[in-house]
Amino acid sequence: MSPKITTELLKQLRQVMKSPKYVQEPLQAYIVPSGDAHQSEYIAPCDCRRAFISGFDGSAGTAIVTEQHAAMWTDGRYFLQAAHQMDSNWTLMKMGLKDTPTQEDWLVSVLPEGSKVGVDPFIIPADQWKRMSKALRSAGHDLVPVKENLIDSIWTDCPQRPCKPLITLNLSYTGVSWRDKIVALRSKMAERKVLWFVVTALDEVAWLFNLRGSDVEYNPVFFAYAVIGMNTIRLFIDGDRMMDPAVREHLQLDSTLEPEFKIQVMPYGSILSQLQAVVAGLSPKEKVWLSDKASYALTEAIPKAYRYLTPYTPICIAKAVKNSSETEGMRRAHIKDAVALCELFNWLEKEVVPKGTVTEIIAADKAEEFRSQQKDFVELSFATISSTGPNGAVIHYKPVPETNRTLSVNEIYLLDSGAQYKDGTTDVTRTMHFGTPSAYEKECFTYVLKGHIAVSAAIFPNGTKGHLLDSFARSALWDCGLDYLHGTGHGVGSFLNVHEGPCGISYKTFADEPLEAGMIISDEPGYYEDGSFGIRIENVVLVIPAETKYNFKNRGSLTFEPLTLVPIQTKMIDVNLLTQKECNWVNDYHQKCREVIGAELERQGRHEALRWLIQETEPLIRVQ
Amino acid sequence: MSPKITTELLKQLRQVMKSPKYVQEPLQAYIVPSGDAHQSEYIAPCDCRRAFISGFDGSAGTAIVTEQHAAMWTDGRYFLQAAHQMDSNWTLMKMGLKDTPTQEDWLVSVLPEGSKVGVDPFIIPADQWKRMSKALRSAGHDLVPVKENLIDSIWTDCPQRPCKPLITLNLSYTGVSWRDKIVALRSKMAERKVLWFVVTALDEVAWLFNLRGSDVEYNPVFFAYAVIGMNTIRLFIDGDRMMDPAVREHLQLDSTLEPEFKIQVMPYGSILSQLQAVVAGLSPKEKVWLSDKASYALTEAIPKAYRYLTPYTPICIAKAVKNSSETEGMRRAHIKDAVALCELFNWLEKEVVPKGTVTEIIAADKAEEFRSQQKDFVELSFATISSTGPNGAVIHYKPVPETNRTLSVNEIYLLDSGAQYKDGTTDVTRTMHFGTPSAYEKECFTYVLKGHIAVSAAIFPNGTKGHLLDSFARSALWDCGLDYLHGTGHGVGSFLNVHEGPCGISYKTFADEPLEAGMIISDEPGYYEDGSFGIRIENVVLVIPAETKYNFKNRGSLTFEPLTLVPIQTKMIDVNLLTQKECNWVNDYHQKCREVIGAELERQGRHEALRWLIQETEPLIRVQ
Repeated sequence: MSPKITTELLKQLRQVMKSPKYVQEPLQAYIVPSGDAHQSEYIAPCDCRRAFISGFDGSAGTAIVTEQHAAMWTDGRYFLQAAHQMDSNWTLMKMGLKDTPTQEDWLVSVLPEGSKVGVDPFIIPADQWKRMSKALRSAGHDLVPVKENLIDSIWTDCPQRPCKPLITLNLSYTGVSWRDKIVALRSKMAERKVLWFVVTALDEVAWLFNLRGSDVEYNPVFFAYAVIGMNTIRLFIDGDRMMDPAVREHLQLDSTLEPEFKIQVMPYGSILSQLQAVVAGLSPKEKVWLSDKASYALTEAIPKAYRYLTPYTPICIAKAVKNSSETEGMRRAHIKDAVALCELFNWLEKEVVPKGTVTEIIAADKAEEFRSQQKDFVELSFATISSTGPNGAVIHYKPVPETNRTLSVNEIYLLDSGAQYKDGTTDVTRTMHFGTPSAYEKECFTYVLKGHIAVSAAIFPNGTKGHLLDSFARSALWDCGLDYLHGTGHGVGSFLNVHEGPCGISYKTFADEPLEAGMIISDEPGYYEDGSFGIRIENVVLVIPAETKYNFKNRGSLTFEPLTLVPIQTKMIDVNLLTQKECNWVNDYHQKCREVIGAELERQGRHEALRWLIQETEPLIRVQ
Repeated sequence: MSPKITTELLKQLRQVMKSPKYVQEPLQAYIVPSGDAHQSEYIAPCDCRRAFISGFDGSAGTAIVTEQHAAMWTDGRYFLQAAHQMDSNWTLMKMGLKDTPTQEDWLVSVLPEGSKVGVDPFIIPADQWKRMSKALRSAGHDLVPVKENLIDSIWTDCPQRPCKPLITLNLSYTGVSWRDKIVALRSKMAERKVLWFVVTALDEVAWLFNLRGSDVEYNPVFFAYAVIGMNTIRLFIDGDRMMDPAVREHLQLDSTLEPEFKIQVMPYGSILSQLQAVVAGLSPKEKVWLSDKASYALTEAIPKAYRYLTPYTPICIAKAVKNSSETEGMRRAHIKDAVALCELFNWLEKEVVPKGTVTEIIAADKAEEFRSQQKDFVELSFATISSTGPNGAVIHYKPVPETNRTLSVNEIYLLDSGAQYKDGTTDVTRTMHFGTPSAYEKECFTYVLKGHIAVSAAIFPNGTKGHLLDSFARSALWDCGLDYLHGTGHGVGSFLNVHEGPCGISYKTFADEPLEAGMIISDEPGYYEDGSFGIRIENVVLVIPAETKYNFKNRGSLTFEPLTLVPIQTKMIDVNLLTQKECNWVNDYHQKCREVIGAELERQGRHEALRWLIQETEPLIRVQ
């Protein structure tokens, strides 16, 4: 990795920061955040503005360029990478370290009196704007919205905003028509007495209209906004995608519909002016509903008195609770995914053990190859984490030629991977050893497994928030002084984003919504030893009602059903550390893998993988 | 319970609400909150203004009186009691029910345009003022501070503010002199770059100066404020208490001290004017530190630019971590408390079983009698919860003649009680049966016990917040569909308030500070069946370092050591529901009770109680 040379680019940026063509008054600083206009976790190449100006292409980071300085804030995952990718024009600001100033404090310390700090109001979320603006104002500076993005103005070979064809999903996949989703949304709006709802998150637009896209890698979404009124539907989307007869048919664009279901298609770029027009027509007490994470540009377009902000939108919450069609689709997707992984692991054992020629990248590619053979495969759901030995301890590792290690019989191998199928999204981690694991490796693996089981088998009352389950995953590790420094689970979309709100399992988040039957999350405790190995065991699990002996206050109970059905390597388990209950859980789980995945392997004629599955799911026997 | 007749009182209050003698402009509404000027949980009789005006004397409730209406907001614990205690002038606002308006919404709905709503600025915490004031302003009304308390102006026989003698605590109790506490506080102030610290909570004043009082029942505190500067100490306190030679000696009021340790004693009522004088002398960037729960009056006295607010003050945090003198004192107090309870339970078994003449009140009185025989006993630490049968399901029950039940061999008995000793504060709950418990009662008791053990024996990393342990206490109950609707633990003071921050174990609070070795909290899961019985098992436990096999990131681990050493009734335990580990925990705990409390019973010559202890601590045997 050699750093990107940015001297010329920074010179150009500093020129446009003063150019009346772009700014009303010269800017003394310009902020380049990480995200796109929809606060997406994964972004399209045209939105990688921070990477363009700095060279640093990690998933999190904010650049600030002043007349004299260029500084980059990023977190511990990326200190090394950022240092390698940026040239000496840049100062790395290591977030989380005691002496690192916040962006606001740093700006105040370097700016001349009465400075203007610019930012693209579409890229900065409203809450961040508020914080930054307040801090700057109290030091005598101004945060100003700059309409035209200044990076775009100097990015001569900026890739086009993707505008790929759409996929329509019929009722057999979605369970609910887009019309019925609009009806349900309007009823939530009526409950809260709001007249308009602005859909800003890409996965929420996709879910609402039962459409999928491929504008962003790994996430089957497309660039669009929607504004839903009690009698109107406006979809803001570019390109000729709306010319596709399948899409027109799906959205009934050419039918004579009741006016309240007639979709008006408008250019993506007209969202702001259209929203302003909506607001201009409001009477007092009429409200517009928006996520509190929406961009400053859209939030500011709605005067405070008309704004109704919530951390989770009604779409976000409805989307999280999967209906039976979605659940069945997720089940099918996980069966296909398990078939692919049985093939992969069988292949790995054959290749790694005698030949030693499989690298992390080869293994990841092979996993993708097996997945792509499955019906309705669309793409991967995130960059495969294929890591062996010490690389496994790098939690967000992605193999690149510089780091690529060869799998061996001496090291633990960790594979965290998943795919998008038309019927569902998968995300699974298995940790295995192709030789003989040490007693210590088995011990750690078994603690992680105990944590995984503690969450998966937990029974808890309706209304429980996921963060209350986080300690269950850690208890066995804590008992012997171990832990892992990440959350335990995240929501998973249904042929949508592999990370979605509003639920999850973490010691950090308390803003999560209560778990409900039909929600789907991951269960993925781990243990990582820097420089040695990484262990993680991850299943995607479905929240289901639990049968209990009693029923306190008639609240009902919930538990989880694993959707992921891939063997957990028994060779890595120290059976004597398991309780009988835990041992039974593993055996029941493996029995189900045998039955369900075995049948599908059989059906697909994959006999070698089936033999591997049978061998890997031999029951554990616990010696008392 | 017959309701208090308030017609005349309300008439008088409405008169003073318009009287230029008390208010600059007539008030259309007056708010009477629950608390005192120090946001105390327990309040003195002179501060029971809401009870005086309404008749309702529960621990939580806010009254609002307008020209036409009188309304009382309280929570589910008090719906029945409030309904019984208030006459028809009052409307009960049941908080937590869907259709109950908030105070703000209700005010807006009943007030004429442009109304003034008054409140005593010393009684309302700053954050509540802010919320209320904002809501009223946005509806065109004004919240105004009324200097003289209007209830006091009509409360002709209002009791005097208590002004009882002080107790001085020497180093053998406190471990740290008040001078050293001031030094430590000033170093925290220097760290945060604040020049002044205002002590508003009564237990914080008491702790800081190593003084105790008895102005408030159950809490050994006294009415006072303190303002600490880098070179000055001002103590605001009334009465001739400062004339007591022991107090003068303790505070070195007559010694020639370095000026920075010279305590200036000032009248309690002069806090506001003195604080205003301090503020008037501040230069820009000089700050005053205050709890964010302090009264509006004091908070408002400090202009925003000079205010430094935190949810927990440095005193609150320092006070929570007990030093070895305090820990040893707490140990001694718990040994004496256990002696008293062994006597009580032995006596109960002798009285209840054959005679059936012991009521809840008699049992509570007897508990107090036995405690008062112990060295350094001061008073109870809260009103004894002595409840049998269905009364046990009322979580905050206190027996009164109307509800007083007789203990019997057919019902479960729950005793939650504690005392203040000069060396420590206790709080213990035991649940027992004097006849033969049913299988179901034993089953529920055993689940609660499993939860108690799960917390008490938990091992967790340094830096863990208590709320992350809450689910451990519920897991066994959850497994069979049961739960309890209160938190699992609270901080306990050292000869101070039985409830103190900043740590605890609850599913509700996330603002708790991480647990540290030396902190002392309660561990008290329960199960309550309305109309039938209540079960709770409560120990006070000390946070101690834990030995673990490994030590991830060198963080170190913590666990708990029970300070409470009172037998847990084995008759109530279904041994077959315990794991071997849990069974061992009970046996080890009982062994320790035998050794420690047995020795003390022996020393005190309490042979009958000793026999009872031996019999109650027979080891459990688990049949595999």
